[in-house]
Amino acid sequence: MPPPRSEAARRAILTAALDLVEEANYEKLSIEGIAARAGVGKQTIYRWWPSKGAVLLDALLALSEDQAGTLVPLPDTGDLEADLKLVMRATVAELDDPRYDRPMRALTAALLHDEALAADYAERLEAPITQIKLDRLRSAQAAGELRADVELDVAVDLIWGPVMSRWLQRTGSLTPAFADAVVASALSGLRRAG
Amino acid sequence: MPPPRSEAARRAILTAALDLVEEANYEKLSIEGIAARAGVGKQTIYRWWPSKGAVLLDALLALSEDQAGTLVPLPDTGDLEADLKLVMRATVAELDDPRYDRPMRALTAALLHDEALAADYAERLEAPITQIKLDRLRSAQAAGELRADVELDVAVDLIWGPVMSRWLQRTGSLTPAFADAVVASALSGLRRAG
Repeated sequence: MPPPRSEAARRAILTAALDLVEEANYEKLSIEGIAARAGVGKQTIYRWWPSKGAVLLDALLALSEDQAGTLVPLPDTGDLEADLKLVMRATVAELDDPRYDRPMRALTAALLHDEALAADYAERLEAPITQIKLDRLRSAQAAGELRADVELDVAVDLIWGPVMSRWLQRTGSLTPAFADAVVASALSGLRRAG
Repeated sequence: MPPPRSEAARRAILTAALDLVEEANYEKLSIEGIAARAGVGKQTIYRWWPSKGAVLLDALLALSEDQAGTLVPLPDTGDLEADLKLVMRATVAELDDPRYDRPMRALTAALLHDEALAADYAERLEAPITQIKLDRLRSAQAAGELRADVELDVAVDLIWGPVMSRWLQRTGSLTPAFADAVVASALSGLRRAG
């Protein structure tokens, strides 16, 4: 986590990074370009972030905090299928929204290149999100909605992997109907004897 | 597809690209570096390939042709679950092998940046592979092994998405047991009423 800083400069830098990624591709994004757009010196950025990928990770974290507040647990009404359909429809809508799609593709590419950034991402974003998914599935397993022998980390991949894969590979439309079909089919496999 | 060329130079260039990606990350890969390693002039590469990503795509195609011959249909013994477990175990082993893992991560990153390369990849590699998956599932559906109302493009994402997602996000081990669990669970959901 970077040290305390001018909040106005930080906001300007994160907004500039998102705007520039929307306008051009990630390979053309540069610290110089972000600095010029944000109206700050290059050194101001280098003082707080080691790379353009690190700026982008913070920009995406700020974006999700802006829109969704802090990370909240998944809904738990006692009906796992209904709860997950709600969550998956929201995920699919977000992945289909250019405001998220472009920076998330850029960040995905950066993570593939940069192992230090990948470790930071895993700790700050992926691990907490995986934890709230596991918490919801554990509650469902305790309530008998999932078989007792289901390994919950495998269940996470079965439920969320298909949407991730279709988004990444652009193999089909990201529709509410697809979200529903994935949840229904994955849960059907996790409820009954394999 | 590039025009006819010296096969020896082509091989040397593709091998150099793979070796360099194994040694360093993709951002550091350059046409200059590939040319130096392959012992050819930079212009020789630019005559045949528009970018380092395009070299890498051909290198990966050549690698899978070397080891597996041309693209063959998936096995069809009449037992979909057994056939897919065989296929998925092979996929998982390949993704867990550094000889494939590093260039495939590099290519995945390149595809995220480069829309022309992504279109070429979709046409030459992804579309034929998706087609052989759909063919196998269609045969299983005709034999009553999948429900008649299963949409086969959704089934492809359900069966192959979890492995892809776990590989990309490094969220767990790529083991034969994971391959089997994914196939068993996904098919269980696709056989019965959702």
